Amino acid sequence: MPRFFASEAPFENSINLYGDDARHIGRSLRMRLGDVITVCYDKIDYSCRILKISDEVINLEVLEQSPSLEPNIELILYQAVPKLDKLELIVQKATELGAVKVVPVMTARCVSRPDAKQFAKKRERLERIAFEAAKQSGRGIIPEVMDIISLDECINQMKELDLGLMCYEKGGKPLNSFEYPEKGKIGVLIGSEGGFDEKEADLCVSAGVSPVWLGARILRCETAPIAAISIIMNLTGNM
Amino acid sequence: MPRFFASEAPFENSINLYGDDARHIGRSLRMRLGDVITVCYDKIDYSCRILKISDEVINLEVLEQSPSLEPNIELILYQAVPKLDKLELIVQKATELGAVKVVPVMTARCVSRPDAKQFAKKRERLERIAFEAAKQSGRGIIPEVMDIISLDECINQMKELDLGLMCYEKGGKPLNSFEYPEKGKIGVLIGSEGGFDEKEADLCVSAGVSPVWLGARILRCETAPIAAISIIMNLTGNM
Repeated sequence: MPRFFASEAPFENSINLYGDDARHIGRSLRMRLGDVITVCYDKIDYSCRILKISDEVINLEVLEQSPSLEPNIELILYQAVPKLDKLELIVQKATELGAVKVVPVMTARCVSRPDAKQFAKKRERLERIAFEAAKQSGRGIIPEVMDIISLDECINQMKELDLGLMCYEKGGKPLNSFEYPEKGKIGVLIGSEGGFDEKEADLCVSAGVSPVWLGARILRCETAPIAAISIIMNLTGNM
Repeated sequence: MPRFFASEAPFENSINLYGDDARHIGRSLRMRLGDVITVCYDKIDYSCRILKISDEVINLEVLEQSPSLEPNIELILYQAVPKLDKLELIVQKATELGAVKVVPVMTARCVSRPDAKQFAKKRERLERIAFEAAKQSGRGIIPEVMDIISLDECINQMKELDLGLMCYEKGGKPLNSFEYPEKGKIGVLIGSEGGFDEKEADLCVSAGVSPVWLGARILRCETAPIAAISIIMNLTGNM
């Protein structure tokens, strides 16, 4: 069943969709009055019947509602900035696999170092990718894509979480050796193409971030986050 | 350290590399006599010193040898044929993550249906991708990419394995509910963009293939194999 995200809460059993969504439903999907679609707002899935169709607005009647099938953890991906096409793949896959947020982090060995203006443009595209992937994969939220932060800021943010992990090529514990707090906030930090330098790793570890071992094989920087999120979602009963 | 696959076994502490590898070492990497590289042959890593360099052959002296860090399971990915660019991503990631073989399977809902000649050309490219990914990720073997087989043939092959799994969008058990035989051969069957039809799923299940649940979110057909292999490698102590 086609799935959309509403921009405003339902009111008296009625929801509206606007703009692109309206044209998509009326023109591309050629849906008709009475057809049923799923509209998601704030982690609730609303099964809705189409009452009115125009190019500007679709008016819908709510038939049923149920909680969206979101993971029982909030997984935040802190990703050291890779080449930007890799970041597109990472945002798409992190969304499908259930992450709530992707935060790019600038580290010492990042080869790709976009300035704020360059990244602002890219971020719009990444947000669009997260939006499309959230629709397609049946998420209850659209994961946020944040501005690039420093490693110091990343460490500060991770201190506020229930569990902070970093995938470190020089070793750590396997992901199935950690306790994952139910409904907890879990941050996972992944290196860029060049990995982390030792000072950075020491800084993270001394701030309470636990190093993680992802096996003897050398994973590309876009493979590591996909693998790590998959494994954590499996270990926490979400996959 | 640069890593290469030898085409023949070492003989009396000497290994040769030929052709593309020879030119790559001499010209692109500009390596010199005495430099040390890793050469892999049949799951053994040989640390070698360069004795002679030409455009045709590099002659190496073996200094040390140790088993390659291959997973303790043999994971075979049976992948229903997706659009062929997705198959490239799947072969690359399956190689990094430790699969030993990728077998494309033609199922009822495959949209992409290349004929033997079209696929033969593509297969060469896929083998090249597996080769490059094996070198880069530090594998002890180059995973094989096979010709397309039918679902019947796939089921026959899976009967010979220690464990056969299929990721099925209509449900099954999560991957952490299975017993994984150590050193066992494990087959994982993944659907194409359209998934499996019910008859196909029934056929697999009645042949002893266990349906697997990969969570409430709908994964793209290239995401499912990456997630499944990652999780199995974690659960078997290989990641």
